[in-house]
Amino acid sequence: MMKDLPLSKVYQLLEPGPVVLLTTARNGRANVMTMSWHMMVEFEPPLVACVVSPRDFSYAPLRATKECVIAIPAMELASKVVEVGNCSGRDVDKFKAFGLTPVDAERVAPPLVAECFANFECKVVDARLVNKFGLFVLEVVKAWIDPIQKNPKTLHHRGFGEFVVDGETLRLKSKMP
Amino acid sequence: MMKDLPLSKVYQLLEPGPVVLLTTARNGRANVMTMSWHMMVEFEPPLVACVVSPRDFSYAPLRATKECVIAIPAMELASKVVEVGNCSGRDVDKFKAFGLTPVDAERVAPPLVAECFANFECKVVDARLVNKFGLFVLEVVKAWIDPIQKNPKTLHHRGFGEFVVDGETLRLKSKMP
Repeated sequence: MMKDLPLSKVYQLLEPGPVVLLTTARNGRANVMTMSWHMMVEFEPPLVACVVSPRDFSYAPLRATKECVIAIPAMELASKVVEVGNCSGRDVDKFKAFGLTPVDAERVAPPLVAECFANFECKVVDARLVNKFGLFVLEVVKAWIDPIQKNPKTLHHRGFGEFVVDGETLRLKSKMP
Repeated sequence: MMKDLPLSKVYQLLEPGPVVLLTTARNGRANVMTMSWHMMVEFEPPLVACVVSPRDFSYAPLRATKECVIAIPAMELASKVVEVGNCSGRDVDKFKAFGLTPVDAERVAPPLVAECFANFECKVVDARLVNKFGLFVLEVVKAWIDPIQKNPKTLHHRGFGEFVVDGETLRLKSKMP
């Protein structure tokens, strides 16, 4: 169902700033959190920075295993995205609780999220800013896209559960990749 | 014209992932570039990470002066945003060339951009990832909002001059700030 996405195209899906889900796994137990604090760092190989707080249950597994999956939900998943963000993996198996389907990844232990239209398997490549800021630099080592979900609209968080959804598209002549 | 914005609200404008303008200044000469690679790192004091490449003319001034302004343009400025991104401050005074108005900032030397609905004065607080990734961690030390621009819609870059503009707003019950 999910197809390969060339690594050179990853930035086109993350640069617009969508809310994403982040999965981790440790000792056979997977978790998923909601995340908006991420950005592109390099086109190819695609590097992504993100911030995961020591208060997040995902922090310790990410730090220890150096692996995660970034999954991009379309707007139809908005209520699940908020539910995932409103509780902790300490207390809940969020995949079960919210009907999200973990799928085996190819290069990392944390699972893909079947309901998301894009999934990026990531490894931590720089942890120098983790102690001070919770800032991880990741390399996307494998990318997947769901061809069934056509023109997905993404969510952009403005704080306190207010999301702006993708609207119209502008196409301008640009030299920028 | 521009009013104080509480620093605690800065993240609400950057977390959705808008295209921004970044101004720098050195030896009395100001420059402006277009930037999409940025993210929030901390709520308050607001910390922001961004990536500026050594290929960008703004890299050396930012690195040397440790100061910049992040300005958020509404969609009406889309063509100027692309023009600013399509040329280099090496060759052009972009403020003059594209009719952007520099305004003195309060805490830093680089100028605000009068046409943008929000302007954040920033100082570099961590440069450990600059050599390897061009990744700067900034602290927003002063924030401004233009109350005349009501409900501005922002631009989100998908690559090659394709921008998605803010659409509808969803409000869900969330415990997340």
